[in-house]
Amino acid sequence: MIRGKFITLEGVEGVGKTTNLAFIKEHLEKYNIPVVVTREPGGTLLAEKIRQLLLDADSEAISEQAELLMMFAARAQHIKHVIEPALAQGNWVISDRFTDATFAYQGGGRCMKVSTIEWLEQFVQGPLRPDLTLLLDAPIEVGMARVKKRAVIDRFEAEKMSFFERVRRGYLVQMELYPERIKLIKANQPLVEVQRAISEALRVLLR
Amino acid sequence: MIRGKFITLEGVEGVGKTTNLAFIKEHLEKYNIPVVVTREPGGTLLAEKIRQLLLDADSEAISEQAELLMMFAARAQHIKHVIEPALAQGNWVISDRFTDATFAYQGGGRCMKVSTIEWLEQFVQGPLRPDLTLLLDAPIEVGMARVKKRAVIDRFEAEKMSFFERVRRGYLVQMELYPERIKLIKANQPLVEVQRAISEALRVLLR
Repeated sequence: MIRGKFITLEGVEGVGKTTNLAFIKEHLEKYNIPVVVTREPGGTLLAEKIRQLLLDADSEAISEQAELLMMFAARAQHIKHVIEPALAQGNWVISDRFTDATFAYQGGGRCMKVSTIEWLEQFVQGPLRPDLTLLLDAPIEVGMARVKKRAVIDRFEAEKMSFFERVRRGYLVQMELYPERIKLIKANQPLVEVQRAISEALRVLLR
Repeated sequence: MIRGKFITLEGVEGVGKTTNLAFIKEHLEKYNIPVVVTREPGGTLLAEKIRQLLLDADSEAISEQAELLMMFAARAQHIKHVIEPALAQGNWVISDRFTDATFAYQGGGRCMKVSTIEWLEQFVQGPLRPDLTLLLDAPIEVGMARVKKRAVIDRFEAEKMSFFERVRRGYLVQMELYPERIKLIKANQPLVEVQRAISEALRVLLR
């Protein structure tokens, strides 16, 4: 059995991750690739319960440390029960967010130390890293305009613009550090152009 | 305002922590000391929700890493929202379990690396350590006989005897490492003797 590829989709709120996740799935299935679509935080019954606690806008104030540890607790479950078994069985796994999001949100957004996140990444993931990460990027105003139309705003979406500016920059720093793995997709252009760029990025994996 | 003292009560299931927690509280209140009684995992609304996830005997299999990170996530909330504010206001805090339990259960019981737990302890606690830890110790059979009479058995209580033997030894190793802080209380003797030993251990703090 040939191990599948692990693709992650990243970006701040409202850049079109959901739409493009569906596009990637359909695109890969044209090549008869078995695809498992999942998300973070979440992906297992327990990890989804942790997600609820993390996103609950009515929660007691969550300390930065608790938030970070809950993210990696959910990730540990997700890797063990979904990502690793699926890859081992030859599926390709597409995850709506993964550890780059932790560097962007908790590192960039919350200003937590990168070395702390790196320690937890190593503890929970060992050598596991995505084969390809598509970073959907657009000016913060574009995404936030979409988010504001949503009926329910979660604990992260309720943050200030300055928070999301730091998150966006956090993602761009990750791209600078891992240019081979992380491909920037300009999300602020017509959908057909976005998806052309995604197809192009996927081509390398499909060879 | 004089900072309060932080007392933790440790031991495996069924050694009498609940009874003796109440005794310690009453004993301190005789000296007009304001006491806050709390527990781990738990102590805040969010930390208690994490506790439910951790103890749920019907849960999906929880990975060792996820379990450890959830313990420390709950602890981060507990310290920030309960323990530190209470101590700062001059209360004495008595917690039914704290980080020695993590060294005993996840370190001893689950055989996780001590250096991993130490890293998380430093990350979440900084310099915070209990002023006094009372370790209620008895042969495992004694405690487990009591636990088996309970109506509901949680995810930890459902473990094998060999697990609890490792937990007990984990606690005893902690005591060897921190003999100044951790006082052994033999729990397998008449309650009046147990409580005489506890009063004796508290006397040092009450001077």
